[in-house]
Amino acid sequence: MDSNFKQKWEEYRAEFEKALGEYLEGMQVRPQVLSESVRYSLALGGKRVRPVLMFACARALGGKTSDVARFALALEMIHTYSLIHDDLPAMDNDDYRRGKPSNHKVFGEGQAILAGDALLNEAFSVCFEECRNGKTYLNAAAEICKNAGMHGMIAGQAADLFFEGKEAGAAEEEFIILNKTAKMIVSAVTVPALVYGADENIVALFAEFGKHFGFLFQITDDILDVTGDFEKVGKTIGKDAAEEKLSSVRIYGLEKCGEMADQHRDICMRILDELPYDCSFLADLTEYVRSRES
Amino acid sequence: MDSNFKQKWEEYRAEFEKALGEYLEGMQVRPQVLSESVRYSLALGGKRVRPVLMFACARALGGKTSDVARFALALEMIHTYSLIHDDLPAMDNDDYRRGKPSNHKVFGEGQAILAGDALLNEAFSVCFEECRNGKTYLNAAAEICKNAGMHGMIAGQAADLFFEGKEAGAAEEEFIILNKTAKMIVSAVTVPALVYGADENIVALFAEFGKHFGFLFQITDDILDVTGDFEKVGKTIGKDAAEEKLSSVRIYGLEKCGEMADQHRDICMRILDELPYDCSFLADLTEYVRSRES
Repeated sequence: MDSNFKQKWEEYRAEFEKALGEYLEGMQVRPQVLSESVRYSLALGGKRVRPVLMFACARALGGKTSDVARFALALEMIHTYSLIHDDLPAMDNDDYRRGKPSNHKVFGEGQAILAGDALLNEAFSVCFEECRNGKTYLNAAAEICKNAGMHGMIAGQAADLFFEGKEAGAAEEEFIILNKTAKMIVSAVTVPALVYGADENIVALFAEFGKHFGFLFQITDDILDVTGDFEKVGKTIGKDAAEEKLSSVRIYGLEKCGEMADQHRDICMRILDELPYDCSFLADLTEYVRSRES
Repeated sequence: MDSNFKQKWEEYRAEFEKALGEYLEGMQVRPQVLSESVRYSLALGGKRVRPVLMFACARALGGKTSDVARFALALEMIHTYSLIHDDLPAMDNDDYRRGKPSNHKVFGEGQAILAGDALLNEAFSVCFEECRNGKTYLNAAAEICKNAGMHGMIAGQAADLFFEGKEAGAAEEEFIILNKTAKMIVSAVTVPALVYGADENIVALFAEFGKHFGFLFQITDDILDVTGDFEKVGKTIGKDAAEEKLSSVRIYGLEKCGEMADQHRDICMRILDELPYDCSFLADLTEYVRSRES
């Protein structure tokens, strides 16, 4: 792994935090409880994997991170809203997120639902403003919207909730991972190619990379739910099993999950090799996710 | 009142139901529970006030209802999602909507939250597709998005929830009505003018009409919550008082509310007179809302 990898990640993350900070500085929202609840969850931070992926893809394509910074912000808003709603008692019922109390534990369920709604809506406000830059930006915005909605992330979450405690197998789990996790990552890695008007086959390669990166990310997440450490992971461990949620580990067992994660990593690497750009950071990031502890 | 008023309303509503029907026919969503919960609430119907307003404004401007039918669909999706989330136990906790069980009573709270999320997201998918028709469509889409979000409807709902059972007065109530109710109606009546690229002052007049129509609509709604009949209104009567919600009637009393409703109606009429178009249907609709029983 490139010794500059962590430094590069921090650089991308800092650029994202700067864009987010500027956004929050200009944000004037009433009532105060709405403003505070939205800020609380956006500022919880985390690894910012999706913005980092988007920035890295923009750089690989020879562009600047600032070209896609507003889309990175929109995508992270959508990701953040989905965590707020997922943590609600009626959904995954999780009291902690990134080591801190979940949004609804601080602001109450009603305001948490509204904070999520507000972030989803605001993400698209940001996207509509970007659309004023031209048709390729509209293509990127429409892609983000499609992958987040009822043909993407929401479909995955609805299936995840539906199959809790029910008999279901590999096909259902694949549907859930593809929609709930992978499609948002597909957005992260295709937005730069769409913004720059790259050839269809290039966009398709990025999308394929995003899909397998998403599977790798979710399978390693499922493994960490069994083997992880609360201090490092920042959320309750063992919840999948306790709630009888579908998970890769429940279906395949730990050993097979390790093999599957290896396979998705290998496919990611092959796709990066095929792309006619310097994708070394994306390769390092893929290796990092395979071996992550949080 | 024009004897053709009800017929015209039915015509607009039928056109909207046709557009909705075509959309639903083409909609292919998995899992089934997500598809069913989204369809359930969209099909609950109601008066379709926002689409009817949008169609009437399009006609007044010399256009066709089909020019804005997709935006009417998007706006009704946003309105529908807001009702699903508002009815949740953590919010207004209402078991009935339009005389039928609320979404969460049928599909459970978790799926109801997701059905709402899906409708909000899908509304903007529809809007992004409309943006491909050009800049004026982008202006209209951005207006819908702004008025629905944390500077509009969601801010109103957050304040409404926050002030439940608290001491608050006219300024808070005005903020809630303006944001929660009026801004969505502003979207309905400004979208056609924006799509047709009307002069700024024309757009501003429609916006002002929408604002006062929104106040009229909400104040008469608050009156019906006290004086209405469940069979006609289709939702629980007396809830505002029971839950100590802010409402115009609670602050001003029934008589003053009647006077305020008259004032907003009169302002609506003056604005319609100022507009250089045949706005007779909009005038009839305003009178209808003033004297409505449901």
